[in-house]
Amino acid sequence: MMKLQTLRVRNALVRECMAEFLGTFVLLLFGCSAAAQVKTSRETKGQYLSTNMSFSVGVMSAMYLTKGISGAHLNPAVTLSFCVLGQVRWGRLVPYCLSQILGAYVASALVYLVYYDAIITFSGGVLTVYGPNETASIFATYPTEYLTLGRSFLDQVVGTGTLMLCILCLEEKRNTPAPSELIPAIVAVIVLGISMSMSGNCGAAINPARDLGPRLFTLSAGWGTEVFTCYNYWFWVPLVAPPIGAVLGSFMYLIFIHWQLCDPEPPENLPEVHTTSDKTRKHITSSEKGDELKTAHF
Amino acid sequence: MMKLQTLRVRNALVRECMAEFLGTFVLLLFGCSAAAQVKTSRETKGQYLSTNMSFSVGVMSAMYLTKGISGAHLNPAVTLSFCVLGQVRWGRLVPYCLSQILGAYVASALVYLVYYDAIITFSGGVLTVYGPNETASIFATYPTEYLTLGRSFLDQVVGTGTLMLCILCLEEKRNTPAPSELIPAIVAVIVLGISMSMSGNCGAAINPARDLGPRLFTLSAGWGTEVFTCYNYWFWVPLVAPPIGAVLGSFMYLIFIHWQLCDPEPPENLPEVHTTSDKTRKHITSSEKGDELKTAHF
Amino acid sequence: MMKLQTLRVRNALVRECMAEFLGTFVLLLFGCSAAAQVKTSRETKGQYLSTNMSFSVGVMSAMYLTKGISGAHLNPAVTLSFCVLGQVRWGRLVPYCLSQILGAYVASALVYLVYYDAIITFSGGVLTVYGPNETASIFATYPTEYLTLGRSFLDQVVGTGTLMLCILCLEEKRNTPAPSELIPAIVAVIVLGISMSMSGNCGAAINPARDLGPRLFTLSAGWGTEVFTCYNYWFWVPLVAPPIGAVLGSFMYLIFIHWQLCDPEPPENLPEVHTTSDKTRKHITSSEKGDELKTAHF
Amino acid sequence: MMKLQTLRVRNALVRECMAEFLGTFVLLLFGCSAAAQVKTSRETKGQYLSTNMSFSVGVMSAMYLTKGISGAHLNPAVTLSFCVLGQVRWGRLVPYCLSQILGAYVASALVYLVYYDAIITFSGGVLTVYGPNETASIFATYPTEYLTLGRSFLDQVVGTGTLMLCILCLEEKRNTPAPSELIPAIVAVIVLGISMSMSGNCGAAINPARDLGPRLFTLSAGWGTEVFTCYNYWFWVPLVAPPIGAVLGSFMYLIFIHWQLCDPEPPENLPEVHTTSDKTRKHITSSEKGDELKTAHF
Repeated sequence: MMKLQTLRVRNALVRECMAEFLGTFVLLLFGCSAAAQVKTSRETKGQYLSTNMSFSVGVMSAMYLTKGISGAHLNPAVTLSFCVLGQVRWGRLVPYCLSQILGAYVASALVYLVYYDAIITFSGGVLTVYGPNETASIFATYPTEYLTLGRSFLDQVVGTGTLMLCILCLEEKRNTPAPSELIPAIVAVIVLGISMSMSGNCGAAINPARDLGPRLFTLSAGWGTEVFTCYNYWFWVPLVAPPIGAVLGSFMYLIFIHWQLCDPEPPENLPEVHTTSDKTRKHITSSEKGDELKTAHF
Repeated sequence: MMKLQTLRVRNALVRECMAEFLGTFVLLLFGCSAAAQVKTSRETKGQYLSTNMSFSVGVMSAMYLTKGISGAHLNPAVTLSFCVLGQVRWGRLVPYCLSQILGAYVASALVYLVYYDAIITFSGGVLTVYGPNETASIFATYPTEYLTLGRSFLDQVVGTGTLMLCILCLEEKRNTPAPSELIPAIVAVIVLGISMSMSGNCGAAINPARDLGPRLFTLSAGWGTEVFTCYNYWFWVPLVAPPIGAVLGSFMYLIFIHWQLCDPEPPENLPEVHTTSDKTRKHITSSEKGDELKTAHF
Repeated sequence: MMKLQTLRVRNALVRECMAEFLGTFVLLLFGCSAAAQVKTSRETKGQYLSTNMSFSVGVMSAMYLTKGISGAHLNPAVTLSFCVLGQVRWGRLVPYCLSQILGAYVASALVYLVYYDAIITFSGGVLTVYGPNETASIFATYPTEYLTLGRSFLDQVVGTGTLMLCILCLEEKRNTPAPSELIPAIVAVIVLGISMSMSGNCGAAINPARDLGPRLFTLSAGWGTEVFTCYNYWFWVPLVAPPIGAVLGSFMYLIFIHWQLCDPEPPENLPEVHTTSDKTRKHITSSEKGDELKTAHF
Repeated sequence: MMKLQTLRVRNALVRECMAEFLGTFVLLLFGCSAAAQVKTSRETKGQYLSTNMSFSVGVMSAMYLTKGISGAHLNPAVTLSFCVLGQVRWGRLVPYCLSQILGAYVASALVYLVYYDAIITFSGGVLTVYGPNETASIFATYPTEYLTLGRSFLDQVVGTGTLMLCILCLEEKRNTPAPSELIPAIVAVIVLGISMSMSGNCGAAINPARDLGPRLFTLSAGWGTEVFTCYNYWFWVPLVAPPIGAVLGSFMYLIFIHWQLCDPEPPENLPEVHTTSDKTRKHITSSEKGDELKTAHF
C-alpha cells in the first residue's frame, strides 16, 4: 500500500464534506444510471423495480463508503434531523448540504456523459420535460399530471417521515438493534420499501439534494428552465417538504419508541451517527451498563 | 438529545399498545401504499411482486421499531398464539388486538390521503368493490370470483399456520437459530414467501388486524357497506381463520420440532417474545448451560 | 409453555425422519403454491421469478426448522452425497429419502386442496399434462418440447452438481465460511440462482423427492398415468441424474477447494451436517486449534 | 471424510490458479446459463433482471468457494488493482488472468452443452451475432447500435471504477466494515446494482475475463470471426477499459476515503485480499481493547 497519508486533509469538516460528496455521488450514480437504462431501453433492460433496487444499492454502497467519516447522511433532511436531535452540530448543516447537492450534480453529469448516446437516440435529440420522449425524469423527480400541490407536499412529508421513523431505531441498544455492520444493508432495504410504495405520486425524492442537484444539472445541460418552471414551479416541494417530514418522523420515533424503552435513564442513548459505537458495542454486557455509556459516548 | 424522558408513559400496557399501534401502522403504510401505487399506475410503477415486497419491508421495519417494547406481534393471530403457548399473558390479548386494528385503520387513512388524487383519477371518482376500476382491494383483501367459502377458509388457515410454523423456530437456541439481530429481516422474507405463494385465492391477509382495520376505513371513507356485504359477507373469513391457523401451526411446530429437539429438559425454552434473550444470549457458552436458562428466563 | 415433553419421540431416526418430512413439506408448500398462484392467475399475481423466489424462501424456512434435528437435507441427492462423503451414516439414506418423498407428496396434496377452485377454473376441469391449460407442471417438472434425453440428463447433473459445489464450502472454517446462523439464507440464495439460470430446459428439479412426491400425487389425484408416461417416460431423469450430479459436484469441491485449503492436517474438517459445529465454533480461537478439532468432532 | 490430502497440490500458485479458474467458472456458469434461459425462452422463464440476479449469485458463490485460497478476484481488472495497491504480487497477475479467462471459457462451453437444444431451436440453427435471433450475447457482451466507441470506453471505465470504489471499503476496520463472513453477499449486491444500472450501453462486462473467455468460446463453437470483428472490432473495449477503470476507482477510494480515515499511521490497513484478516480479526477480545484501539485508531 502506498504510504501517502500525507495526503490526508487536515480539516475534519473538509474530510467529512468530501465523504458526503462522494456518498451522494455514489447514490445518484447508481440511481440515475438505472433510470437512464430503464427509460432509454424502453423497459427492455430493466423495469421500474430495477430503478428502485439500484437506488437502494446506491444507499448501501454509499453508507459503507462514508459512514465511518461523516455518518453517511447523504440527505439534507437527515442532516437536519440529526441537528435537531442534537446528534450533529448545527455548523455541519450547511456544508454537508452543499456537499450533498454537489455530489448529486456531478453524478448526474457523469450519468449524462455515459448515457448521452442513449438519451439522444431515445429523445430524438430534444431534451424535454413533457411527453413520451421526455428524459428529465431520469435525473430529477416530477409529479404526475393529476397531483395537486398539497397532496405532493403531504406525499414528501410522509415519505421522509417514514424514512426517519424506520432508521432511527436501528442502532438503539435498548430495543432490537440491527447488526451494526449490516445497518447500510438494512437502511437500503427500507429505502427500497419507500421507493416501491411511495413513489407513485411524485417519485419519492425524500431528499432535497437528490432532487436539486440533478435538476440543476439538467438546467445547465440543455433541458432549459422548464425543469424548474414546469408543473407551476413544483420544484420547491421536494426541497421544503422532506426536511419537515424528517423532523416529524423523528419526533414520532421519540414519542412512540425512544421515550418508551425500558431503560429511561440514558436518554442520550439515541442512535449515534458515527461508527464509534459499532466498535465498542460488542464489549458491552448488561452488567456493565454504567461503563457502556462512558465507553460509547466520551 | 432532548432529555424529555418525563414523557415516558408510566403504564407498561399502554406503552406496549402504543408500540403495537405504531408497528401495525408502519406495516400497513408500506403495504397499502404499494398496493395503491401499483393499482393506480396500472402496473407502470411496480407490479404484484412490489406490493408483496413492500409488505415484507413493512414487517421488517415494524419489527425493528417495536420488538423491544411489545414483541412486535403486529397480528392478533400471532398474539393469540403466544397467549396459547404461554408466552404472553391473556390480559394482553384484547388491548393488543385493538391497538393493531387501530394502527391498520390509521395507516389506511393516511394512504388514502396521500393517494387520494390517484385513487379518484383511477376510479373515475366512484369508490367501488367490483369491476376493473375497483379500489377497495388497495386496502382490505377480497376473494377471487371462483373461490368457495370453505376453500378461502382453508387458504387462510394454511397461510397463517405456515407463518407461525416458520417463525417459531427462529429464536430456538437448541435448533439452528437465526441471528437475533436479523430476525426482523428473516421474518420479512418468510412473509414475502407467503404473499408470493399463498395470495392467489384471497390476498393472504393472514392477519385479522391487517384486514379489518382497512376494511373499516373503507366503510367510513365512502366505499359503502359493500366492503362488508360483498361476496356474501366474506369479510369474516380473514378474521376467524387466521387465529385458528396460527394455533394449528404452532402445535405443528411443537409436535414436529420443539418437542423433538436434543435437549428435552428445558421445555420453557420456546422462542421468547421479548428481546431480553437477544441481549443475554451472547454471554452463553455450552459450559454455562445451567446458568443460561436462569439468565434467560428469570 | 406446555410441558409435554413426554411427547418426544424416543427413536432418533424417527425424529430425524419427522424433520425431513416436515422440511420437504415446507419447501414444496411454498414452491408449489407459488407455481399454482402464478399459473392459475395467468401471471397476473406473480411471474416466473416469484416461483423461483418462493422455492428459495421454502429452502430457507425448511432449513431453519429442521437443520438442528436432521441436518435439513430436504433432497435425496444431498443425503446421498453426505453418505458418500462420510458425514451421514448409510443407514440414514433410505429412511431420509422416503420421508422427503412423503413430505413432498403431502405438500402437493395440500396445495391441491388450497388451489382446487383455481386449478379447476384455469384448466376447465380437465387435469392434463399437455397444452396451454395444463396444470401438471404446478407440481412435478416436465421438459420443454425440443429437449433431447441426454441433454436433460446433463442439465440435471450440472444443476445438482452446482448446488453441492456451492453449499459444501459454506461451513468450512479454513476457507471463508458463511455466518453459521445465516447458512439457511445463503443456501436459499444459491438455490434461487440455480432456479433462475438452470430451469430453462426442464424446470430445475435437482431433487428426486421434490419431483417424485408431487408426480405421485398428480397420478393419484386425477392427472392420470400421463404424468409418468409423457415425453417418453421422461420422469426417471430427475430421479437418477441429480444423485449423480451431486456426487460429481462434491468431488469437484474436494479436488478444487477442500484438499487445497491451507491446513491439510484435519481433512475430516468438511462442513458438518449437524448444527453441533455451529454451537461450538464460537469458542474457538486459532491458538486453540488442536482443541477445536476435538471439540468439534468428537 | 476421505483422507486423500495427498492430492493437495504442492505449488501455492497452482492452487490459487485452480481457485481462480473454478471461481470464474462458477460466476459464468450462473450468469450465462441465466442469459441462455431468458433469451431462448423469449423471456417467459425469466427476464433481464433475472440475468442480473444470476450473475450476482454467481459472484457470491464463487467468492465463498475461493476467497480463502486466492482472494476470489474473478476478474483481471481486480487482480491488477490489487497489484497496483501492493496487496498482490505482480507475479500473480498473468497466471491469475489466464486462469480466469480459462474458467470463463470452460463455463461457456458447459452452458452451450446444456442449452444446445434451446439455442438451436431459438436461432433456427444459425449461430449469429446480429438480428432478432442472435445468440452471441448469451456469452460475450456487445454494444447497442447507437453507441460510439468513446462512450462505450467511458461506460466500462465508470462501471469498473464503481465496482472497485464500492468494494475496497468493505473490509476496512477503521470505517464501517461489512461483516467479514458476509462480504461475498455484499459484493454480490454491489455487482447486482452495477448490472441493473450500467449495462444499458454495452452489457456491463466490467471484467476482461468474463468477456474474452466466452467470446473465444463462441469463436471456436461456430459463431465465426464476427464475434471479434463486429461493431468495428469492438471486442477490445471490455478488455482494455475495465483495468483502467479499476485503477481509477481504487485511487478515488484512496483519495476520498482511505487517506481520510481517522487513523493515518497504519496505511497498510487496506482491505486485505486473503482471508487471513478474517481469521485474525476474531482474536480480538475485550481484554485486548487497549491494543485494538491503538491499532485501529492511532
